[in-house]
Amino acid sequence: MSILIKNAYIVTMDKDGIGEIENGFLFIEGNLISKIGDNSQHAADGISADTVIDAKGAILMPGLSNTHTHLGMTLLRGFADDTALQAWLETKIWPAEANLTAEDVYYGSLLGCLEMIRSGTTAFCDMYFFMDETAKAVEEAGIRGCLSYGMIEFGNEEKGNKELAVSEKFVRDWQGKANGRITAMYGPHAPNTCCQSFIARTKKAAERDGAGVHIHVLETEAELNHMKENFGMCSVHHLDAVDFWNTSKVPVLAAHCVWMSDGDIRLFAEKGVTVSHNPISNMKLASGIAPIQKMIDAGVKVTLGTDGCASNNSLNLFEEMKTAALLQKVGTVDPTALPAKTVVEMATVNGGRVIDKLTGVLKAGSKADMILVDVQKPNAIPIFDVYSHLVYAASGSDVKTVIVDGRILMQDYKVLVMDEEEVMKKAKEHALSLAERTKRKN
Amino acid sequence: MSILIKNAYIVTMDKDGIGEIENGFLFIEGNLISKIGDNSQHAADGISADTVIDAKGAILMPGLSNTHTHLGMTLLRGFADDTALQAWLETKIWPAEANLTAEDVYYGSLLGCLEMIRSGTTAFCDMYFFMDETAKAVEEAGIRGCLSYGMIEFGNEEKGNKELAVSEKFVRDWQGKANGRITAMYGPHAPNTCCQSFIARTKKAAERDGAGVHIHVLETEAELNHMKENFGMCSVHHLDAVDFWNTSKVPVLAAHCVWMSDGDIRLFAEKGVTVSHNPISNMKLASGIAPIQKMIDAGVKVTLGTDGCASNNSLNLFEEMKTAALLQKVGTVDPTALPAKTVVEMATVNGGRVIDKLTGVLKAGSKADMILVDVQKPNAIPIFDVYSHLVYAASGSDVKTVIVDGRILMQDYKVLVMDEEEVMKKAKEHALSLAERTKRKN
Repeated sequence: MSILIKNAYIVTMDKDGIGEIENGFLFIEGNLISKIGDNSQHAADGISADTVIDAKGAILMPGLSNTHTHLGMTLLRGFADDTALQAWLETKIWPAEANLTAEDVYYGSLLGCLEMIRSGTTAFCDMYFFMDETAKAVEEAGIRGCLSYGMIEFGNEEKGNKELAVSEKFVRDWQGKANGRITAMYGPHAPNTCCQSFIARTKKAAERDGAGVHIHVLETEAELNHMKENFGMCSVHHLDAVDFWNTSKVPVLAAHCVWMSDGDIRLFAEKGVTVSHNPISNMKLASGIAPIQKMIDAGVKVTLGTDGCASNNSLNLFEEMKTAALLQKVGTVDPTALPAKTVVEMATVNGGRVIDKLTGVLKAGSKADMILVDVQKPNAIPIFDVYSHLVYAASGSDVKTVIVDGRILMQDYKVLVMDEEEVMKKAKEHALSLAERTKRKN
Repeated sequence: MSILIKNAYIVTMDKDGIGEIENGFLFIEGNLISKIGDNSQHAADGISADTVIDAKGAILMPGLSNTHTHLGMTLLRGFADDTALQAWLETKIWPAEANLTAEDVYYGSLLGCLEMIRSGTTAFCDMYFFMDETAKAVEEAGIRGCLSYGMIEFGNEEKGNKELAVSEKFVRDWQGKANGRITAMYGPHAPNTCCQSFIARTKKAAERDGAGVHIHVLETEAELNHMKENFGMCSVHHLDAVDFWNTSKVPVLAAHCVWMSDGDIRLFAEKGVTVSHNPISNMKLASGIAPIQKMIDAGVKVTLGTDGCASNNSLNLFEEMKTAALLQKVGTVDPTALPAKTVVEMATVNGGRVIDKLTGVLKAGSKADMILVDVQKPNAIPIFDVYSHLVYAASGSDVKTVIVDGRILMQDYKVLVMDEEEVMKKAKEHALSLAERTKRKN
């Protein structure tokens, strides 16, 4: 199977190679990009391909990577809003999650994959439960998923053993499946919901299995205070004591990182930890403003995530890009903070690096994960700077075509990999039934 | 001409009447809503109409009102980003504006109308120059516009006289035109670009002509400091001294209001001033976080605006709704601040009140300005609360049908009132030519 894309304005995100190509072509063979270049001399004329896509009037760019989600929660979109965090969790989200079934998570995950495909996300990092169901949804939807079973043990060793066993099985069962589209990570939930020694055990298991780790860190001031009161130090240093942040063997992905000190930031930069910045969730739950510009200045690898649908309430990474740029500017009182190109790097090359090193960039040898962004729309007139357009003016609904691993998932706004109506119908039924079951039990 | 809309989930925004109607109908005769109600008993069956719209799978709601724009600036979308405010103005925006022609503003305005229609905005308040061109665009596009010529006199009486004369002619020429879709306001630019006595003169002229006034107020800390240094008080009290905020005769619309003190807020509440909150622009230019929840608690009428395209860079009020809710929560460290329904009120009924008292609400006797929001989309599954959906999960691109003053401007995503391709082509040509002219002269 080969695909030739012609007449595209290409944004490669390849720092060491070409940047943008005004009239470019890209040739996909199997699941890899085999050629990319300028087509002003009709260099692509001699290439024969199974499928030819005319990308005139569109930007061709790497697919976006959403590095922090809880896809099963898609069924809880809008289940509780405008609520204080603890009440939100205790009276709404946790009771509903206690009633979630495997099938709920399956349909919630399919719906989430559909929403991500429609808004240009080609890869995501997830942490939740019933993860076999999310893996099945990823397998079917054709998207790329880096999945972790979220473990919470609250210092209980027996519970910890069980959680770790579930994770180990999940990693064994799914690592590298679906032609490598599925990768697995270990997911110790957070430093205030899992004890230090348990988190250290999950890291050892991850290194043994060649899987990364995905953890929530310093999302709230409450976590920071809890850690200081109980351990005399913050989450970052508490876990550094067991060498958790060492990335010499496997990647470490830390979500939120709102309450990071300058010392924490330096440590993350030295260790090579990847941060998932979730500005919309942090704003919606009033968690705070993560010091992203400081992190970038210090050399931390920062990526973007939407968090779960219950605290966003969408999975649209274009919204997240714009919000990230805006929030950092108002938060630092500096309109030059987090410029557009840096934001696009966060959502593409930086996100790709933690999920699959061969994604996030359009160059020969990379995996064929990419999107076409339609610029034949009023919000795309004029375009003086392509990165500014993508961050400040474009919208997820401008994404017209999505390719992952060399397969076309959506072409000219038509999703090819699932029966969209059926997925929406089933997901809606499961969401309403979940709400009904939760209501009955409470 | 009559239109019957059936099978709609109706969000009326009518505080004193019905709230939501699950299976509703709405009947339009001429430019007015003549009937609205529950259709579960097939109450609409006997109504015959020229056009029948089946709104199954859509939310019917009042069109959104964007209360602060500079539509001619649409051609400067993305012209300069990630730049400090003063440099942005002095080295980029002002030089470009100095090269704007009437035809530029005409096509920029048409493009802006198109973008607003596509994202569900049915009415807007504008302040710019070459306003005859914007008025012509509004006339053609079928949208509702409350237009003001932006006057800057920097304390120069001769310049002030000229500016006022242009405004007076504009108000005379356009007030009430296009079947009342065009209303005019006086637009003294801001308290730090126009002197107190000039602003007082514009208010007198407005009261004489029965036109409102539209002004920028306390957008930046620099304005606050400038006013305090020069007049020993802030902009609000400086203009209160000439009774500028008195709304007993005409509405007063104050844009931005980021640096308002508690006293300023009390004064605005007492006087009945309408505030246009522009969260995206305030974040992008790092102006600050307006105390919107405080204003609402004090009884100030708060509406939403996008500001010009150069500082946003879109005219999409759905983005503005979500950002307003998010920014207020993180700014006040309170996730219950600015709940979804309040935000929808800002964008509909509150905005409508300052533009045309018969808009912003769906009830019998109101003008027929409304939109259908498609909920047959993955981001609309599930919906537990319709206001939460509209603010946190919906997107401007979900708007499928737009009616203004009883006329269908867009139906099932097809814009009926202009040649969309031609408008985009012309606007692009003018934007590129403007940039080229600006470059040559600098």
